[in-house]
Amino acid sequence: MTQHWYEQHRPRFERAQDACRERHCWSPFAEMPGLYPDAAGAQARAQQGFAAQRGRPFALEQPGRIGSLGEEVSPYTQEPLGIAYPQADIDTLFDAAERAMPAWAAASIETRIGVLMELLDRLYREHLFEIATAVMHTAGQSANMAYAGSGVNALDRGIEALVQAEQAMRAVPAQARWQRGFGSAEIVLDKTYRLVPRGVAVCFACASFPTWNAWPSMLASLATGNPVIVKPHPASVLPMAITVRVLRQVLVEAGFDANLVTMALDSTAEPLGKRLVQHPLTRIVDFTGSARFGQWVERHAHPAIVFSETSGCNTVVLESVVDLDAVLRALATTMCLFSAQMCTSPQNLYLPRAGVRTPAGLVPLDEVAQRLAAAIDSIGREPRRAAMLLAAIQSPQTLDLLRQMTAQGAAAGRVLLAPRPYAHPEFPNARTSTPLLVQTDKTQRGLYGQERFGPIGFVIACDDAADALTQATADVREFGGLTAFVYSQDETFIAAAEDAYARAGAQLTINLSGPMPLNFAAAYSDFHVTGLNPAGNASLTDLAFVASRFRIVQSRRPAVLQPELQETTT
Amino acid sequence: MTQHWYEQHRPRFERAQDACRERHCWSPFAEMPGLYPDAAGAQARAQQGFAAQRGRPFALEQPGRIGSLGEEVSPYTQEPLGIAYPQADIDTLFDAAERAMPAWAAASIETRIGVLMELLDRLYREHLFEIATAVMHTAGQSANMAYAGSGVNALDRGIEALVQAEQAMRAVPAQARWQRGFGSAEIVLDKTYRLVPRGVAVCFACASFPTWNAWPSMLASLATGNPVIVKPHPASVLPMAITVRVLRQVLVEAGFDANLVTMALDSTAEPLGKRLVQHPLTRIVDFTGSARFGQWVERHAHPAIVFSETSGCNTVVLESVVDLDAVLRALATTMCLFSAQMCTSPQNLYLPRAGVRTPAGLVPLDEVAQRLAAAIDSIGREPRRAAMLLAAIQSPQTLDLLRQMTAQGAAAGRVLLAPRPYAHPEFPNARTSTPLLVQTDKTQRGLYGQERFGPIGFVIACDDAADALTQATADVREFGGLTAFVYSQDETFIAAAEDAYARAGAQLTINLSGPMPLNFAAAYSDFHVTGLNPAGNASLTDLAFVASRFRIVQSRRPAVLQPELQETTT
Repeated sequence: MTQHWYEQHRPRFERAQDACRERHCWSPFAEMPGLYPDAAGAQARAQQGFAAQRGRPFALEQPGRIGSLGEEVSPYTQEPLGIAYPQADIDTLFDAAERAMPAWAAASIETRIGVLMELLDRLYREHLFEIATAVMHTAGQSANMAYAGSGVNALDRGIEALVQAEQAMRAVPAQARWQRGFGSAEIVLDKTYRLVPRGVAVCFACASFPTWNAWPSMLASLATGNPVIVKPHPASVLPMAITVRVLRQVLVEAGFDANLVTMALDSTAEPLGKRLVQHPLTRIVDFTGSARFGQWVERHAHPAIVFSETSGCNTVVLESVVDLDAVLRALATTMCLFSAQMCTSPQNLYLPRAGVRTPAGLVPLDEVAQRLAAAIDSIGREPRRAAMLLAAIQSPQTLDLLRQMTAQGAAAGRVLLAPRPYAHPEFPNARTSTPLLVQTDKTQRGLYGQERFGPIGFVIACDDAADALTQATADVREFGGLTAFVYSQDETFIAAAEDAYARAGAQLTINLSGPMPLNFAAAYSDFHVTGLNPAGNASLTDLAFVASRFRIVQSRRPAVLQPELQETTT
Repeated sequence: MTQHWYEQHRPRFERAQDACRERHCWSPFAEMPGLYPDAAGAQARAQQGFAAQRGRPFALEQPGRIGSLGEEVSPYTQEPLGIAYPQADIDTLFDAAERAMPAWAAASIETRIGVLMELLDRLYREHLFEIATAVMHTAGQSANMAYAGSGVNALDRGIEALVQAEQAMRAVPAQARWQRGFGSAEIVLDKTYRLVPRGVAVCFACASFPTWNAWPSMLASLATGNPVIVKPHPASVLPMAITVRVLRQVLVEAGFDANLVTMALDSTAEPLGKRLVQHPLTRIVDFTGSARFGQWVERHAHPAIVFSETSGCNTVVLESVVDLDAVLRALATTMCLFSAQMCTSPQNLYLPRAGVRTPAGLVPLDEVAQRLAAAIDSIGREPRRAAMLLAAIQSPQTLDLLRQMTAQGAAAGRVLLAPRPYAHPEFPNARTSTPLLVQTDKTQRGLYGQERFGPIGFVIACDDAADALTQATADVREFGGLTAFVYSQDETFIAAAEDAYARAGAQLTINLSGPMPLNFAAAYSDFHVTGLNPAGNASLTDLAFVASRFRIVQSRRPAVLQPELQETTT
């Protein structure tokens, strides 16, 4: 069956290999819900399933059950989901993972790739709306973003991880014959090279965008032979619980041990993260989450290796533009997108104190700031658009932070836009907020010099355009940053920005406006995170993301020379 | 000139790519001094040069000079070399490295590979005997081993690192065009992908085998755009000082900043290692040395990444043999080779208590131990053979350890062979010792359960063959181990050994006897270190050894569509 799966999915896999090599646009999946086969039916079934799951135990048979946990609250209803998930004894999960590993590690590369391609296809065909609904009611994403960003795009990132893993593994041949003279003797050795998985991988998924990072991490570990223990954020368990359940089913169908993938759930009151990272059997940690805990993980995981994505200040530098309104519209849209609860959302806008150059002359900084505020404000004033763009606020802590930053912003700058709830047209109890926008000066690094998670933006006055670039890239180097956006009509300035951001390690987008979200990161094409600044140490997905998840062990012995060869020489 | 170098060395580089892919036997270099062009002349010049260098300052122009250091003592004469090397201010070296990096990072892959291939060729053609002589009189290797192991084989490991680095870098295209519809709009982006070096690499070289690990590490870092600060062991500076001087010359000839490679020297009294590892500009650490400091480096280098090779217990399991004398001869030779001062030297022999099966019947354990002792003893009794095989003892501490272990061995087992100096035929004052061989029981892990650096071996009685394998691989997992050797005529036992050593992460050699040293690791073919046990975390040389030395930063912007294309569509 598993060989069948490899052959079945091989055309898609080979097409994905092309895409990774060429880095052009491609996906085997319908990018929009409207293009999905019987989307309405699938969505209706997902909603029925979700309604039926609420208030009920989640059926996940895995070993070591010691109780139940569940504290999810829908950002759209602000009511508990009431789903009770199995709480597992950690040591039992590790032991089960260790026992499951040898047969999976011994399987061929084709077998493992086939099983994991089947998983992704199964998630797409049978569980996409179920997962999208789960993401919506845990992370607070809009239905469209949950479908695209947490659904098909995340599946694409998963395939991409498989392509990279396969490439790294194929670089090692299965065997070789080696022959050399030593003195008068000829030594002929047959060598076999075995790819050995590093060991149990712990995958931390984050609260606001669980699948997009976790799926490629899980697939990178599994493709290279490692079992995975998934540690969802207690606020967003359901998407990962569904993933784990489907993966376990597919593994069993393929004849492998379901315990290659299990879920280790904890609670906000009693977090398990440190225990999982420092468990004596942990060999790989994939971490998406806060910079603070991420730093701890990076420092304390040894001997496990760590692949992290944390957070930083994503920066925008406005030097000169052709169409200021188009640029501000694009910025406003992107700063509103999912209430800036994405690791790629822009937060800090650095502008020359004198203003931004346009074909109609210099537009003063205050005016640019006001027009940006107006563009953002107009989104918050249209409930349907706000619902589509801003969606909901994942955590009540973000509302606290908004209050706190509004006060700090008033003290260290000027509040251009104060946050307020907007009325969600479909969910009247939704936890929502329009963005906070503060105008300040580059000296106020205490205000803007870290990720302020949520719909919070800063317009930062700098001495001039060169100073804006210097300040922005210095902030990225010091505080981290994943994405960066530069607007300039001056090719010399653009070249300087490309150099400065390359050194700072942020993925740069230049002069983009229009309907594509500025922070959209395309699988197979865009590298996500550079590892060059504090915002994370790993990239989705390059060879470095996969090559150290397995090791190479060899065995060599004197060759038994073929009798027919010996005959021909006599 | 640099483009010329790439073209000039391209056939050799492409041949090396084939060898890495096929992992067969290949080298562009003369494996034996006798095959080297005008070897006698080259050797004479090297010896004259060495004699002239003794007692004199070493000419190495590098920035930040704050004094001179030099404490090398030749193991062959036990006299100080009297060479004074420049001692540098560390911060100055880091600053100089940072300044040197951008132009090197901006060079094409071809340019960097060309420069580094030229370096290796230059080392071979102009400095091979100079380096071999330096290795001999610092590490204590025999002339032949210094030529082969520390010379041509190390050069081959260097080329191998370049091949892997090139493969990892080529996996990322320089640019792509990406096109996708968003709503009714078509977004066309041109993307460029830039490979950005991680930053300053610190390369620790060890005392007994400095070039073999350091050269591939340095070349892996340099190929991917990083500057390197070399930290030689204070006892073995000369080989690395020559390397650094030649590299700086070649870099300057190619138009680059010499400070891409500098040397940070310290003394035994005032070691610099921790400061170098934790310097705020350190981004990569390559470490070869003790398990104890290696563990510290692995734990404390963050945010720098670490590639380590430390030490462990290399194990031998004797189950059954066809020709016991041939096997014991091969083991004796390999245990004597360079007085077992190699990270690959076997140390622990695990035997069934009942003895070893042979075609002539079971040979009791005591007899096997005695015959092994006799085979080792016979080497020590022939001064010419002893000089060729045992060579000299690098450090006086090893003689202390031999005394201490002899006492411990007598207490926890039986001393089969007591160490004693042998008379070196060429250097009457050479620091030498024949091996210590102790017979003991598997319960005495306090005796044998760690690397005992130097010519020290243990014959360990186990319950039976299965128990011997279990104990040996458990020891590798717990204490580390790079190589392993199994002798068995039972294919079931061999298969079990392959599985067990694959899990333990030691590179296995089966049923080998004859003239090839059992622990010979061939460039392009043998992987060295697995990273699966405490003996090191990196392998020479796989993609994981190179892929994270650089990062990928991208820049994307709306495409300017070609006018001719626009014309053809109107």
